[in-house]
Amino acid sequence: MTRFALTIEFDGGPFCGLQRQQHSPSVQQAIEEAAHTVTGEAVTLHSAGRTDSGVHALAMRSHMDIAKDIAPFRLMEALNANLRPDPIAIIGCEEKPDDWHARFSCIGRSYEYRIRNRRAPLTIEKGRAWHIARDLDSDAMHEAAQLLVGSHDFTTFRSAHCQSASPVRTLDRLDVSREGDAVIIRAAARSFLHHQVRSMVGTLALVGQGQWRTHQVAEALEAKDRAALGLNAPPEGLYFVAAHYPDED
Amino acid sequence: MTRFALTIEFDGGPFCGLQRQQHSPSVQQAIEEAAHTVTGEAVTLHSAGRTDSGVHALAMRSHMDIAKDIAPFRLMEALNANLRPDPIAIIGCEEKPDDWHARFSCIGRSYEYRIRNRRAPLTIEKGRAWHIARDLDSDAMHEAAQLLVGSHDFTTFRSAHCQSASPVRTLDRLDVSREGDAVIIRAAARSFLHHQVRSMVGTLALVGQGQWRTHQVAEALEAKDRAALGLNAPPEGLYFVAAHYPDED
Repeated sequence: MTRFALTIEFDGGPFCGLQRQQHSPSVQQAIEEAAHTVTGEAVTLHSAGRTDSGVHALAMRSHMDIAKDIAPFRLMEALNANLRPDPIAIIGCEEKPDDWHARFSCIGRSYEYRIRNRRAPLTIEKGRAWHIARDLDSDAMHEAAQLLVGSHDFTTFRSAHCQSASPVRTLDRLDVSREGDAVIIRAAARSFLHHQVRSMVGTLALVGQGQWRTHQVAEALEAKDRAALGLNAPPEGLYFVAAHYPDED
Repeated sequence: MTRFALTIEFDGGPFCGLQRQQHSPSVQQAIEEAAHTVTGEAVTLHSAGRTDSGVHALAMRSHMDIAKDIAPFRLMEALNANLRPDPIAIIGCEEKPDDWHARFSCIGRSYEYRIRNRRAPLTIEKGRAWHIARDLDSDAMHEAAQLLVGSHDFTTFRSAHCQSASPVRTLDRLDVSREGDAVIIRAAARSFLHHQVRSMVGTLALVGQGQWRTHQVAEALEAKDRAALGLNAPPEGLYFVAAHYPDED
């Protein structure tokens, strides 16, 4: 068996998410089926993160074990050929040692959240960004975001369905910047709770619109109560952008 | 009557182009119908450029004359409300003097052409860029592009259906740059012939792939013959990005 690490880009729109689910099309199922077609083997895909329905990935990292003798480049090409017309692309493929694990070896994850802040509806970026018509104060959002950076109990900012044993996470970075009428939020941590990025972004958007004051973000965090959450941002603005590994840094 | 200048963003995918055609949905028809709903008037839209089916616009400039007493911001909002769910957005609207003409007053047009240069198919950018799998030498493309800058008879680089009286145009800028696996071509001129940008990009792509040498681009230009064209690039990578006017510069 050879362990192959994959770098995967996908448009989350048509899928129930990355992870396999019983009755809905998932990115995992599409890739596993393509791998089965290529190798004849029952292949399981393991990934650095789980993404919800509608969430995109520019560079998800995953791995799978394959018995068939095949070069990484050939495997990548064959998977891509069999993934059509699904909007999933294998953009990188390399051999890794057997103890390299896309999820458990991962020491850092980065997400980007894209907001388009303008009156007019979205056209070219429909399904690719969160459209907010009211003016956002991105400086106020960035200031409030800094209250969330560091080690905290993020119970307020995680889904009721989050399966993680601990609600404590260490947020390394939560930067908000404006580029024209785009407001971009960049988040980095060793790992995130389910819905954590979207919950943080939704709450920051309330601050940006002046509906919440900065101190209310601190109070929501303190409350350790999902009911204290401001707002969960929609999935279409969220992109998984990078996973980091000790052997690659 | 008040003359309103519009700035328009659209996804060209679902349309036969900007300009009205008899039996296909056009951007012009959609906006004129929305304007009719808002004002009750038979409104004609005049635009800085004509774009083909599949070509996008980030900031097309157009104008229309309206008798109804309405503020620019209200008109913009009402048009956008009536354009849903078409991927067309009015992102700017202002009053102009009666002699301001979106097409005839325009002294410069800018286009951007986006290529994604990688093995894997496109996902998030499907329909938003030209996918070229073979390695492109963007430096060679830029060098060849400079042969096209200046005043030339662009017969080779215009559609057989081009209605312009003269095939001579002055190309002010044709820059090719690489940003990761994206290759971006930026073109600026007072005006362009029909298919000129796509014809130039298609030919440069042959140079980038090593199928054409630089001097062949000069020979194709010299030939003044459409049959000498290398390749017409597909529409989905092309974006109309700006129109320039003397009163705004």
